[in-house]
Amino acid sequence: MQAPTDIVETLTWLVDIPSETGNEDEICSAVAARLDGLPTKRVKESLVVGQPGDRPLIVLAGHLDTVPRQGQDAASILDGRLWGLGAADMKAGVAAMIHLLEDPEVMEGPYNVVGVFYAGEEGPFDGNQLADVLEGVPFLSEASCAVVLEPSDGELQHGCNGAINATATFRGSSSHSARPWWGENAISKAGEWLAKMHRLEPIDYEVDGLVFRQVATVTTAEGGVARNVIPGEFRCNVNLRYTPDKTVAEAIGDLEGLCEEADLLEVEDVAPAGSVDANHPFLVSLAEESGAPRAAKQGWTDVARFSEIGVPAVNYGPGETSRAHQVDESVPLDQLSTVWDSLRSALTS
Amino acid sequence: MQAPTDIVETLTWLVDIPSETGNEDEICSAVAARLDGLPTKRVKESLVVGQPGDRPLIVLAGHLDTVPRQGQDAASILDGRLWGLGAADMKAGVAAMIHLLEDPEVMEGPYNVVGVFYAGEEGPFDGNQLADVLEGVPFLSEASCAVVLEPSDGELQHGCNGAINATATFRGSSSHSARPWWGENAISKAGEWLAKMHRLEPIDYEVDGLVFRQVATVTTAEGGVARNVIPGEFRCNVNLRYTPDKTVAEAIGDLEGLCEEADLLEVEDVAPAGSVDANHPFLVSLAEESGAPRAAKQGWTDVARFSEIGVPAVNYGPGETSRAHQVDESVPLDQLSTVWDSLRSALTS
Repeated sequence: MQAPTDIVETLTWLVDIPSETGNEDEICSAVAARLDGLPTKRVKESLVVGQPGDRPLIVLAGHLDTVPRQGQDAASILDGRLWGLGAADMKAGVAAMIHLLEDPEVMEGPYNVVGVFYAGEEGPFDGNQLADVLEGVPFLSEASCAVVLEPSDGELQHGCNGAINATATFRGSSSHSARPWWGENAISKAGEWLAKMHRLEPIDYEVDGLVFRQVATVTTAEGGVARNVIPGEFRCNVNLRYTPDKTVAEAIGDLEGLCEEADLLEVEDVAPAGSVDANHPFLVSLAEESGAPRAAKQGWTDVARFSEIGVPAVNYGPGETSRAHQVDESVPLDQLSTVWDSLRSALTS
Repeated sequence: MQAPTDIVETLTWLVDIPSETGNEDEICSAVAARLDGLPTKRVKESLVVGQPGDRPLIVLAGHLDTVPRQGQDAASILDGRLWGLGAADMKAGVAAMIHLLEDPEVMEGPYNVVGVFYAGEEGPFDGNQLADVLEGVPFLSEASCAVVLEPSDGELQHGCNGAINATATFRGSSSHSARPWWGENAISKAGEWLAKMHRLEPIDYEVDGLVFRQVATVTTAEGGVARNVIPGEFRCNVNLRYTPDKTVAEAIGDLEGLCEEADLLEVEDVAPAGSVDANHPFLVSLAEESGAPRAAKQGWTDVARFSEIGVPAVNYGPGETSRAHQVDESVPLDQLSTVWDSLRSALTS
């Protein structure tokens, strides 16, 4: 399918508005101006387009910001792709959202469609304004379903693993390294535990034919004060990716079991898992209309923020994840058309 | 034995001349002025007192600098001890050296006695001016024997272990921590090796009834770039204390064997071992005169610098090592007397 000319024009327009994380004011205002015929509510540099109603509420969500520019030029089209910073991640998804919200057949169809354009997704976890939007616009929690239009490699990606970081601390006691028997080495004390962590295999969890894998890894390690001192403390970050069948408390329990050899385990941050609801009627319809293969989302995405407020969500958007954040970022225009058309069909049928 | 009043006065005088590492000019000049009846040669902020001759050459060595002041007052005497910064480490030894060099019976006895007062011992390895003195005053390498008057807990400490630091690097490959099977974890990969290092037992080496212990420990560890990235590199410092029976090359060979699991081993620095020559006639005489128990020196000392140029050396000086570098530093005056008297007897008999 050829992408309709006007969507490509919209994508070009979006790519050419700079919107690195922290500088989303201009693009937020531009999108608000473009959609000014619809009810909008601005939250910081983010925008909610639409309002509550009687029909089932479907949220379309996409972030406005991009990673920092790496010398990319203005948007250009070549070989059936649109090239430029943010083309795939995720201004193509935002372009599709705008065209769906501007489409009378969509807006007057069986669903109440609301768009959420948000800032701060590419920066630190705490700066992600989707959290502010979901808190500041309570009717969103009554949504029947949400679609996050991040690039999804042509797949319909359900749920996502949760993520927990914790610091495992091993304690010994310092001494001069010429007489190690006067102390206890906190670094080598952790050796058996590290070896155990290295032997861990993923634990698979299958739901509705989708396979998620729970994994735990040691991602950072730091210990010792000087070359000639037996180290009294050794700290490791343990990163757990837990499957959507578990609660946060159960996941922390798993982590405590894995780290029972440590002298102290401190949870640093928790990102909840995104639950799977593949039988939701709208998602079944979207799967049929798109023909997209269903997949489990192994990494963490904003889909989980919707799960957290009780809204089933999927990740489905144009672009290849491998192109995101790359200097040669681009998006295939046929994927943009497919996503736009599939969502349009599902929202109007 | 009571310390002769004049040695205690000399020690008081020395303690009250500030000489933190890097600021030894004043004390070096003061000692040179005090000993100006003797031939002296200044090297940077260090001083050699004496000259070559026909009699067997005995070197007395001591450093002039102290660690930084921690609020200590001027020198004071209480409970049979002299209190103050540097009292034990090692101005008491320096006071004994001065009195031996000023003593006609010592200077006209069977030995040619030379004093080496040097700067920079308490700072970085590279700033230790004993290296400059031994290089700049070649006749010192013809010495029959050397005594370093660092505090030795009343013992006659022979030789010293060598020390080598090396960086063991483990390599893996980075990936997103949600999909660890796409990478290889460099930190947990090192677990089995760390566990092996933790199980290491000291290897004892006995020479002339003295026991040295070879030990190898992991003293620092560092790896990982972010909480959500499988670490591609993990670096550990391995500190080897090797016994005086080994050459540097043999010690490095031991280290390579211990770290064969690492992907890379890089030697960072080498401090040679101090050899043991407990049967040297002067040292036998000193042992008899002092009645001091003989001991192996497990840590590294400047004794090794004399070994390196072929001069047998011991560590024998007033003070407890546990008092060195402490805010309540002090030296027992009876130990000062014993060391001074024992050396005087050995040097004149």
